[in-house]
Amino acid sequence: MNAEEASGLGDRAEAMIDALAAASDDPGRLTRLYLTPAHRRAADMVAGWMAEAGLAVRMDAAATVHGFLPAGIEGPRAGKRLLIGSHIDTVVDAGRYDGNFGVVAGILAVEALRSRGIALPFGIEVLAFGDEEGVRFPKTLISSSTIAGALDETVLDMMDADETTVRQALVAFGCDPAALPREAYRRADVVGYLEVHIEQGPVLDRTNEPLAVVSAIASQGRYHVRIRGDAGHAGTVPMAVRHDALAAAAEVIAMIEEIALKGARASLVATVGAITVRPGAVNVIPGAAEMSLDVRAADDAGRDAAVAEIRNRVRQIGARRGVVVGIETVHEKPVAVAAQRLTRALATAIRTVTGAEPRALMSGAGHDGQAMIHLTDIGMMFVRCRAGISHNPVESVSVEDMGLAVEALVRTIVALAGEGAVS
Amino acid sequence: MNAEEASGLGDRAEAMIDALAAASDDPGRLTRLYLTPAHRRAADMVAGWMAEAGLAVRMDAAATVHGFLPAGIEGPRAGKRLLIGSHIDTVVDAGRYDGNFGVVAGILAVEALRSRGIALPFGIEVLAFGDEEGVRFPKTLISSSTIAGALDETVLDMMDADETTVRQALVAFGCDPAALPREAYRRADVVGYLEVHIEQGPVLDRTNEPLAVVSAIASQGRYHVRIRGDAGHAGTVPMAVRHDALAAAAEVIAMIEEIALKGARASLVATVGAITVRPGAVNVIPGAAEMSLDVRAADDAGRDAAVAEIRNRVRQIGARRGVVVGIETVHEKPVAVAAQRLTRALATAIRTVTGAEPRALMSGAGHDGQAMIHLTDIGMMFVRCRAGISHNPVESVSVEDMGLAVEALVRTIVALAGEGAVS
Repeated sequence: MNAEEASGLGDRAEAMIDALAAASDDPGRLTRLYLTPAHRRAADMVAGWMAEAGLAVRMDAAATVHGFLPAGIEGPRAGKRLLIGSHIDTVVDAGRYDGNFGVVAGILAVEALRSRGIALPFGIEVLAFGDEEGVRFPKTLISSSTIAGALDETVLDMMDADETTVRQALVAFGCDPAALPREAYRRADVVGYLEVHIEQGPVLDRTNEPLAVVSAIASQGRYHVRIRGDAGHAGTVPMAVRHDALAAAAEVIAMIEEIALKGARASLVATVGAITVRPGAVNVIPGAAEMSLDVRAADDAGRDAAVAEIRNRVRQIGARRGVVVGIETVHEKPVAVAAQRLTRALATAIRTVTGAEPRALMSGAGHDGQAMIHLTDIGMMFVRCRAGISHNPVESVSVEDMGLAVEALVRTIVALAGEGAVS
Repeated sequence: MNAEEASGLGDRAEAMIDALAAASDDPGRLTRLYLTPAHRRAADMVAGWMAEAGLAVRMDAAATVHGFLPAGIEGPRAGKRLLIGSHIDTVVDAGRYDGNFGVVAGILAVEALRSRGIALPFGIEVLAFGDEEGVRFPKTLISSSTIAGALDETVLDMMDADETTVRQALVAFGCDPAALPREAYRRADVVGYLEVHIEQGPVLDRTNEPLAVVSAIASQGRYHVRIRGDAGHAGTVPMAVRHDALAAAAEVIAMIEEIALKGARASLVATVGAITVRPGAVNVIPGAAEMSLDVRAADDAGRDAAVAEIRNRVRQIGARRGVVVGIETVHEKPVAVAAQRLTRALATAIRTVTGAEPRALMSGAGHDGQAMIHLTDIGMMFVRCRAGISHNPVESVSVEDMGLAVEALVRTIVALAGEGAVS
């Protein structure tokens, strides 16, 4: 690899990230929700860069920006396109790299391919999705689900905090909701879906590696745990006759942690992120507790087994303590396993660029690939982020790592172009 | 005992409790905070009953209603008075018996003494305190502390939720805050302080006993526990490198429960009644947790030892998990031990009335006796309440048990009258 070239790509990426970070709806911090004025400004910026890079630009009915470069070589795959995407929406008070860097990397990779005079046997399309964080509306991945033909149209009637529906927001943005079904791509027209994304976790920072391939986007489940005990006076009810809902919750939390630690080799993680108790007074034994539970694993069976064990142990804890415990499933998303042919191409490219065999990581976080897998094979590359911090203004990715990521993406595309000729 | 007489006393008590329960500031439920219109109506009702019972009535500068019956026998104790009291304020959506029954019992006991023609060698004063629950202002026991000469006058500037100070509320009620210091009684003028109160716990209901003596009002401490860990993405941070503040809190709660169960023989109880975590989102590892801790025991040494062990174990948990844990003392109240001479008289009277040796219970709840002990010896009697439920509209005490309690109070007073002649 030409180190100077990679470094140049990193500098370009950083400049584009800087420019995008200015498109915010909050003064002094980065907040860019789906279909807002800041989203419009960011989409316009991305469209401008795509046009400069020689791509044919359009915005679809879900406000996704498409930048298309037709195949440069005649052949059986000339009518197909390789999709490269990520998202340009952010959380509230966000970091600058999450999502945005994947879009920038796609544009820079196509630019590099053209400037190096590399012609491809398939088209390339860079996609800038607008709804991956799911902050504005109750549902997420609206934009990638549209292209994947996996959009549940009941989503259109969901409302944001101001009671604006998705449908109304799309119309106000200049999009035609009635055209959404026509945006779905056909499997036969697509080569695959690649995404570059920051890791949002601490592993690469700890192992001192710039890039990794993603083996899968985790199997994820969200649950709601309710415990009903008996409230009582904190001074007058002896310990032995209490049915303290919070003491029971504490035992449940410890048990969940124990099960997750045991399953760490299967990338199992389980988190109780929120808890409330009632009545919640210093001198009253808690009569009720509710908590959230988030369980993720490298495969559905691992998650199912963990949740089944949690349900079983929770029943035992409830019976022993004389409290009523219920676990309600909020939602479960199956694992999205990356396609081996894409993972292999990514790994080879990363090895060429970094000189070391890349690690395969499970993505605990959700991504647009979870929607795109309904359409085509997916492959993802992770880029190290400092201290694993994301969804936070201090989120940081080095210029060098960004340069390496773009270069590895270029080489992945080239590898797919060559391999395709055989397969 | 004359069973018919006791039953008559119970019926009288129930009628007075019913009448008092109508004095509420909330329509449809009982809420009677200190120095409110409902407090005024209840105080007027109590004053009327005291006058009917032949007591000389006055309201003091802290809004306590005093009903005084002078000694009926000349002698060395004729200038002294035996104080019998409880409180007529309530919590929000309260039960009808908590506090109120103690005042009613005092009035009925004096009435019974007079109707039975029993002359006493000391005066009797029934006290209806207005501030035991501490719901309106941040401080409690203002009324009993005033008589005990233990009032911290900085209390006068404390404010309720509407920013009315205690001083302003007293003036609006017709009381003169400047007169408060003059309301303090002198130890030499007092024989002792007796209080009848519902148990507010489940012990007597479980053991099927109507009455008990109180050995002590528990040593009590309130603490605030803060845990600082690291927030992080619930999907991307492996279990092994987490510093989850809620998981640490759960271990702390389990440890506190274990220590309290171990100390059950010393009447130790420990309660975590409130907990909050930040950021408190389903998909974020909690970075911080705060919780309340309430520890009570039959003696100060037992409470101190438990809290010391909790502090020590909390440090170990923090060190092992890489989280910062702090425990701040909010307040500590020493144990208020009942005087043996009063406890003995109460136990003898209860045995006479019920035919069985009464159990001695620690009061885990706080009472006006905690203030009165600064002035004089205290003695308390507990009355069974159904299922141990208090601070709740379903709070219930049987007519029979109330009759027994008043009769036992009468006999306690008679016993003290006789005993005093010797001592």
